[in-house]
Amino acid sequence: MGQPLWITRLPDAAVAAYRRDSPGGPLAGARLAIKDNLDLAGVPTTAACPALDAPAASSAVAVTRLIDAGAIPVGKTNMDQFATGLVGTRTPYGACHSVADPAHVSGGSSSGSAIAVATGEAELALGTDTAGSGRVPAAFNGLVGLKPTRGLVSTTGLLPACRSLDCVTTFTRTVAEARTALAALAAYDVDDPWSRPRPPLPPPGVAARMRVVGVPAGDLDLDPAHAAAWQRALAQARGVAAHVVPVDVSAFLAAARLLYEGPWVAERWAAFGGLLEPDGPHLDPTVRGIVLPGRDLRAADAFAAADRLAALRRATEHVWYDIDALLLPVTPGHPTFDEVAAAPVAVNSRLGTYTNFVNLLDLCAVAVPAGERDDGLPFGVQLIAPAFADEPLLDLAERWTGGRPPERAAAGARVAVVGAHLTGMPLHPQLVGLGARLAYRARTAGGYRLYHLSGPGVHRPALVHTGDGPAAGIAVEVYDLPEQGLGTLLGSVPAPLGLGRVVLDDGSEVTGFIAEAPRLGGAADITHFGGWRAANSPVAP
Amino acid sequence: MGQPLWITRLPDAAVAAYRRDSPGGPLAGARLAIKDNLDLAGVPTTAACPALDAPAASSAVAVTRLIDAGAIPVGKTNMDQFATGLVGTRTPYGACHSVADPAHVSGGSSSGSAIAVATGEAELALGTDTAGSGRVPAAFNGLVGLKPTRGLVSTTGLLPACRSLDCVTTFTRTVAEARTALAALAAYDVDDPWSRPRPPLPPPGVAARMRVVGVPAGDLDLDPAHAAAWQRALAQARGVAAHVVPVDVSAFLAAARLLYEGPWVAERWAAFGGLLEPDGPHLDPTVRGIVLPGRDLRAADAFAAADRLAALRRATEHVWYDIDALLLPVTPGHPTFDEVAAAPVAVNSRLGTYTNFVNLLDLCAVAVPAGERDDGLPFGVQLIAPAFADEPLLDLAERWTGGRPPERAAAGARVAVVGAHLTGMPLHPQLVGLGARLAYRARTAGGYRLYHLSGPGVHRPALVHTGDGPAAGIAVEVYDLPEQGLGTLLGSVPAPLGLGRVVLDDGSEVTGFIAEAPRLGGAADITHFGGWRAANSPVAP
Repeated sequence: MGQPLWITRLPDAAVAAYRRDSPGGPLAGARLAIKDNLDLAGVPTTAACPALDAPAASSAVAVTRLIDAGAIPVGKTNMDQFATGLVGTRTPYGACHSVADPAHVSGGSSSGSAIAVATGEAELALGTDTAGSGRVPAAFNGLVGLKPTRGLVSTTGLLPACRSLDCVTTFTRTVAEARTALAALAAYDVDDPWSRPRPPLPPPGVAARMRVVGVPAGDLDLDPAHAAAWQRALAQARGVAAHVVPVDVSAFLAAARLLYEGPWVAERWAAFGGLLEPDGPHLDPTVRGIVLPGRDLRAADAFAAADRLAALRRATEHVWYDIDALLLPVTPGHPTFDEVAAAPVAVNSRLGTYTNFVNLLDLCAVAVPAGERDDGLPFGVQLIAPAFADEPLLDLAERWTGGRPPERAAAGARVAVVGAHLTGMPLHPQLVGLGARLAYRARTAGGYRLYHLSGPGVHRPALVHTGDGPAAGIAVEVYDLPEQGLGTLLGSVPAPLGLGRVVLDDGSEVTGFIAEAPRLGGAADITHFGGWRAANSPVAP
Repeated sequence: MGQPLWITRLPDAAVAAYRRDSPGGPLAGARLAIKDNLDLAGVPTTAACPALDAPAASSAVAVTRLIDAGAIPVGKTNMDQFATGLVGTRTPYGACHSVADPAHVSGGSSSGSAIAVATGEAELALGTDTAGSGRVPAAFNGLVGLKPTRGLVSTTGLLPACRSLDCVTTFTRTVAEARTALAALAAYDVDDPWSRPRPPLPPPGVAARMRVVGVPAGDLDLDPAHAAAWQRALAQARGVAAHVVPVDVSAFLAAARLLYEGPWVAERWAAFGGLLEPDGPHLDPTVRGIVLPGRDLRAADAFAAADRLAALRRATEHVWYDIDALLLPVTPGHPTFDEVAAAPVAVNSRLGTYTNFVNLLDLCAVAVPAGERDDGLPFGVQLIAPAFADEPLLDLAERWTGGRPPERAAAGARVAVVGAHLTGMPLHPQLVGLGARLAYRARTAGGYRLYHLSGPGVHRPALVHTGDGPAAGIAVEVYDLPEQGLGTLLGSVPAPLGLGRVVLDDGSEVTGFIAEAPRLGGAADITHFGGWRAANSPVAP
């Protein structure tokens, strides 16, 4: 039929009708490719299973919202069947290859959506991402793949994989386009039980401007060609972030393993297991072989896994006190078709090493290009942040890709806190109650020392510019605070503490907590911890 | 041994040692009975299974926190084995009866804890509550039974029933004592994966002062003696609350049925199923018969139930826009031992009709006495509210029991909002950003009418005192707003709206949104909806 295998194009007349009826808007004229597990009114939603040939009665909410913002649907895209795969080969419609090399897989499950944008057939494509399906094909085709916070984009009209984890995602060439698409997509949907409203304030610890990027403290499992590209990405991170901080990612990676080793395949079976019998050429044998055993998994193991996941989430939470975003490669490697054919399940599982945990741990992520490997294949990394940090994460991603995020006006005063007012610390609620919002994480300039004031009531640190403090400075959080709140805050500060001027890592000077050095008495010098939190962990998230 | 069956008393010397070593504090000298699924250092935690005879190495975090606040442990209490039951009869240590009547069960599973307080043997007892175990025995013994928000009190040192749902609870004679105990108990525990920090601000929709109480719109399943007492409780509610509002509770009750019909028994099996083999006289046959089949439940059904629960939670969320707390009886009846013996599972299941949903839907609740039935048995009701509404809920419970909750000083201005600034509405985040906190829900005085202003941008209502509006008034939310925020708010209000004086249901006058009647033009009169939200549902929670 002249149709490429990555997309089933809509008839020209249908596209022309969408164009004629388009209301315009922020996405005016943008050609939209739609993963074939999302409904588009009037055409079948196959999820790469040709037996599903009934036309959808109406469009998915995500599709409708993009059309209402001016996007023009142009086709439905090929995918790993039932969104079960990260390779792009598990489909009766034909395996997709990376736009960069026909010997290497496209990545999946949103394979066709990535290719449609990478080939220029569409400016925007919708995908979905449960374990990494929105990020892996972005990385393998040099694109931006945004996986928003779970529940931010409606899944009404999606043929589900794991209902509790599924996210609708976007593929674009630029971060700016992803931002425009997300603005159109994000909306509470009362008809989607897993939809969540955006909270009225950013969650604790989510900074308006991301400056501190975490990177894995140890070595990662990476193919050699990937490893060299990763080293260059680490160098790029040091140019984009004010601070690059090594963090222990073992609990994140343990959660990733839990997704495939745990009971969630039973959730897939619950969602679409009924479509896997009887067998036939319309079914992908690998997908069927993975999901059918989900029927026999035990509920007790599902609850045990939920308990294990809660413990792993707890083990990761403290990381988000110290960093704004986590940088990881999207995958450990970029397999060839031969490699996938030789070990279709093992190769696929390994692809999820760095993506599987993101939805389980309720994080948002964006895959961004990070140059090329030495063999010329595109290399992609992920920036990952807590739920509802999507906007500042996109700002960081935009800086990563060399763009300039939109200016966000800050009102009121800026104040640097160093102790009991930090996120999760006892006096943090007081600060929030005064209307303060975390602007960014920073460190002081060199020369400051930190002391522990003991005494009745809340324990507090004292920050003193002795001149002989470490060059790396002391960790602080900088808040935007209404001018009036500053007076209230000052009134609550006991001697020998006070508010004065603090010089930060970038040379800027802000209002901050200082102490009268002569009145410190026998306070212990805790400068070597590098900050109050490190001297007082563990604490509440 | 002279021990009553509801409690295993500590040796006098042990109690004396606790008394001698007590640091004093807000609970100074209060005798503490501890449900025997919570560890007390040096004595076994049997969970009513005599085979568990190893002394606990250390005390549960909840126990330790009470001791640190001055409480004196006096004994471990009998319970439905493994906290699986609401009757108090499922224990090899002997079935407990209500303190009011030896023919009627004590309720469970925290049977002995309730009796210890009801008999005056302790001022305070710890229980646990997964399906209702902290509230049913409170109701059957004339006590206050507080089930705090899930995760507010650590479960470290608890032998679990359902890890994801278990809550540590208190039994006291008064609400004031429950408040003091909760203040000592509530603390984030990094070692408990299910612990949750109290958010720095109250969640959206949680009012500082609860004035609007919801009651079931339809008839309830109640035994005749219970039904008459319930009618008197409804009359009492009209004296305690400013507004008593009928609400549809069918989704709440459907969630309650899901707990017993669904997969959560597999979570019990995962927690303690290993202790149920081999059989023996140390095991309660009913508990064993219920939990052993949990081994064979399917993970797919667990995921399907989670999906169903998400839908039911969604169906209940809108209720919390209109009310502060929900009033329900604790149980449909108060069975005799004969009734339990005749149908041990069915009678127990029915007892959970009004309690089972509370943890599943992430709510907090307090059981309070509501007089007596005509046969002299104590009658108890529950006040139920969203997560982290514990404090205002206790204030309401205190008013219910005739007490005076502590005064909470309000700072700044009071402003009544009527439209787009309401919780969950588009401009609500603006209000929160100005530092506003929901003080209470109210209605205007009679005589106001509500109009729908159409036009560009956000849809808004106009509140006008025409004098001929309904006597029941129009629904408003009253916020505490920093004085400075009021100016910012006023600057954002477009004509014909403005801020002026609004008279409320209690005759008080507050600043609020008003409109210039002559400039309303052809705005539609939507007074008959009774409020902006009712005219604009469904909306985000």
